[in-house]
Amino acid sequence: MKRLNLVVLGIGGVGRSLLQQIVVNRSLHTKQYQLNLSVQAVCDRSGAISAEDRSAGLGDDTLGQVVEFKASGKGLVEHSQGIAQDDPTKIVKQAIADQAANQETVVVDCTATEATVSALTLAIDMGQKVALANKIPLTVQQEVYSRLTTAGATERDLGRSRWETTVGAGLPVIATLGRLIASGDAIQRIAGTFSGTLGYVMTGLQEGKLLSEIVREAYDLGYTEPDPRDDLGGIDVARKALILARGIGWALEMDDVQVEGLYPSSMDALSISEFMDALPELDSSFQQRIQDAAAQGKVLRYAATVEDGQCRVMPTVVHADSPLGRLTGTDNLAEFHTTWYSPNPLVVQGRGAGVEATAAGVLSDIVELAYT
Amino acid sequence: MKRLNLVVLGIGGVGRSLLQQIVVNRSLHTKQYQLNLSVQAVCDRSGAISAEDRSAGLGDDTLGQVVEFKASGKGLVEHSQGIAQDDPTKIVKQAIADQAANQETVVVDCTATEATVSALTLAIDMGQKVALANKIPLTVQQEVYSRLTTAGATERDLGRSRWETTVGAGLPVIATLGRLIASGDAIQRIAGTFSGTLGYVMTGLQEGKLLSEIVREAYDLGYTEPDPRDDLGGIDVARKALILARGIGWALEMDDVQVEGLYPSSMDALSISEFMDALPELDSSFQQRIQDAAAQGKVLRYAATVEDGQCRVMPTVVHADSPLGRLTGTDNLAEFHTTWYSPNPLVVQGRGAGVEATAAGVLSDIVELAYT
Repeated sequence: MKRLNLVVLGIGGVGRSLLQQIVVNRSLHTKQYQLNLSVQAVCDRSGAISAEDRSAGLGDDTLGQVVEFKASGKGLVEHSQGIAQDDPTKIVKQAIADQAANQETVVVDCTATEATVSALTLAIDMGQKVALANKIPLTVQQEVYSRLTTAGATERDLGRSRWETTVGAGLPVIATLGRLIASGDAIQRIAGTFSGTLGYVMTGLQEGKLLSEIVREAYDLGYTEPDPRDDLGGIDVARKALILARGIGWALEMDDVQVEGLYPSSMDALSISEFMDALPELDSSFQQRIQDAAAQGKVLRYAATVEDGQCRVMPTVVHADSPLGRLTGTDNLAEFHTTWYSPNPLVVQGRGAGVEATAAGVLSDIVELAYT
Repeated sequence: MKRLNLVVLGIGGVGRSLLQQIVVNRSLHTKQYQLNLSVQAVCDRSGAISAEDRSAGLGDDTLGQVVEFKASGKGLVEHSQGIAQDDPTKIVKQAIADQAANQETVVVDCTATEATVSALTLAIDMGQKVALANKIPLTVQQEVYSRLTTAGATERDLGRSRWETTVGAGLPVIATLGRLIASGDAIQRIAGTFSGTLGYVMTGLQEGKLLSEIVREAYDLGYTEPDPRDDLGGIDVARKALILARGIGWALEMDDVQVEGLYPSSMDALSISEFMDALPELDSSFQQRIQDAAAQGKVLRYAATVEDGQCRVMPTVVHADSPLGRLTGTDNLAEFHTTWYSPNPLVVQGRGAGVEATAAGVLSDIVELAYT
C-alpha cells in the first residue's frame, strides 16, 4: 500500500467536492491502486485544520464535517478544530516536517488566489509535489510557472506537479499537450474555446439573438459571474491560453497575451446595472460581425489561439466545418494542430467547468502523482 | 540524467519510425526530460541486433542503418550485425540480465503478432516495463491482459505499462480512460469509431454512394488492407473495443464481443476478386439502412459501443448532431459518457492511424514510463 499525504488549500466548491470524492473513492483507490490518500490538513482564507495524529490523518468523519461546515458558508477558523492562520505556508511546512521519511506530500491548490504561491514553491523546494486547480500561480511571472512545473530543472520533472484542471477543468488538455511535446511532435497551433459562458453567448449570437439579450439571459440564469464583465472581458480565458503557451515552452507573461473582450474598456467604469443597460449599444456591431463571417461560410467563436509564439484571445472567425466551428453550447474544445495532426487537428472536447468535474480532474492528478 | 534501456520488437513501419523519432528527439529528451533513451536491441521476425557495448547501446549510426535496411524489405538476420533468432524472449532476457542494477528496460512491442507475449510477460515478471502498439497481447486471454497491465497486482501498477496506441493510435484514448477511472467517475458508455477505412466507407454511404463503389474506390487507392474484408469485417475494431472494456475493469474475451461486419460471413469463402464482384449485392440493403436512419434524423456509423458490461461493434444508428454523428471522413473519435460528462460526453478526436503518429504515441508512452 502506497500512502500519499495531502494538504488541501481552498475548501470552496472544488476543494469541498475533492474531499467528498476522496472519501467516496477510498475503496477504489485501496483496491485498484493500492493507494491511501491521507489528508493531513485543510486550509481556507481564515484558518486551517491539521491532523493531530499524523499517522491517521484527518478522519473521514472530520472531512465529512468540514464539507458540511464549509457548505454553510463559515470559515475554518470558526470550526471547533480550526485554528486561525493567514499564511498556508506554515501549515504546509509543518505537515511536511511531520511526515515520516519515506512519505510524500501533495499540496493541492483549489483556491483562486496568488496567496498560495509561497506554499506551493515551498513544497516543491522541499522535494514534495503539487496539484493545482488554481490558474493564478501559473500565470504570474514566468519564473514562478517554471519553479512550479519544474520544467527542465531536475530529473523528476514529470513527477512533481500536475495542473490539468487549470485549462478545461477535467478535460485532458494539459495531459494531451504533454504527450505531444514528449514525442517531439511540433505544435503549430492550439485553438480552443475555454469559457462555457462565452460559448453560450457566441451560440446565441449565431442563432440570431442580440448580444444584450443573451447576456441578460445568462446573467438572470446565474450563468455569468456576479459581474458579467469578468466573463465577457476574456481575462480568465487569457490565463488558460498563457498556461498552454508556457506548456509549449514559450516564455510569456500575461501582458503578452492579446485580449479583446466582448465590450470596450470604456465600459469598465460603469456599474453593473449601467453596464447591462448600455449593452444594446454593442448589438449591431456583433450582428454585423456574425453576418460578415456567415457570408464567407464561417462563424464567430470566442477563441484562444496559441500560435507563432503568441497568444490571442478574442472573437475569432473560424471555418464553419472545423471542430471549433461545429461546436455549439457551453462545452469547451481544444484543437491541437501539429506535424502529425494535420490537416485535421487532434481535438479534446467536453464540459470545461463544474466543481465535481474539476475536483475529479484534481483527483486524477493526485493518483498520477502517487505513481510518478 | 535518467537512462532508460529499450528493446524494440518489430521494425516494420511503426518500429522504424520509432527508431527515427528516438534519434531525432535526442536533444529534446536530454534537455527537457534529462532522459537518455538507450536502444539495447531491435528484433524482427527473422533476427535481432543487440548492442555489444551495453553501456553505449546501439549507436545512432547503427539505428539509422537499421531503418534504411528494413525499409528495403530485408530481415534483420541478413544485416551484417544481425543474428538469427526465432524467439524475442531470449533477446529481452539477455538485455535485462546485462543491465546495471540501477537501470530499467522498456520492451516496446511494435509487432502485430501473439509471438511477443512471452517476451512481454517476462519483462513484467523481471520487474521491467512494457509499451505496446500491438493489440494482440491485450486481446488474447484476460489473464495475459491483466499480467501485462498489472491491474491491481502491485503498488507500481500505474508505472509498469502503457498501451495508448492500441486504440486510436496517438490519440489520448487510453490515457483519458485511465484518468476517468482514477477519479472514480463512473463510465456509463464509451462509443467510438476506430477505423479510418470504415469511417471513409460510412461517410461515402452517407453521401449517397453505393457500398460497392466506395469499397472499390478505397481498395484501388490502397486505403484498405490487401484483403478489404480485414477492414470490413470489424475484427480490428473489436480488438480495440475489448481493450477499452478491459480498461474499465470488465473481464471479457474476444468471443464476448458482438461483431457485425459490413458483409455476411458467407462471403468469407470467396476470393478477393469474387468478393469485390459480389459487393453490389449488398448495396441496396445499405442504402435502405441509411435512408431509415435519415428518416429519424439519424446517421449510420461503424461504431464500437462499450456499455453495460458488453461490447458491440457494428453499423450503428446515432443522432446526427452527436459527436459521432457529426464526424465525417477517416478521423477516429471516442465519446466517454460518464457521471460527470453527461449529457454531453468527453470527446477525443483525430487521426487514429499512420505510422508516424503511432510511433509518436509510443514515444510519449516511453517518456511517461521513464518517470513512473
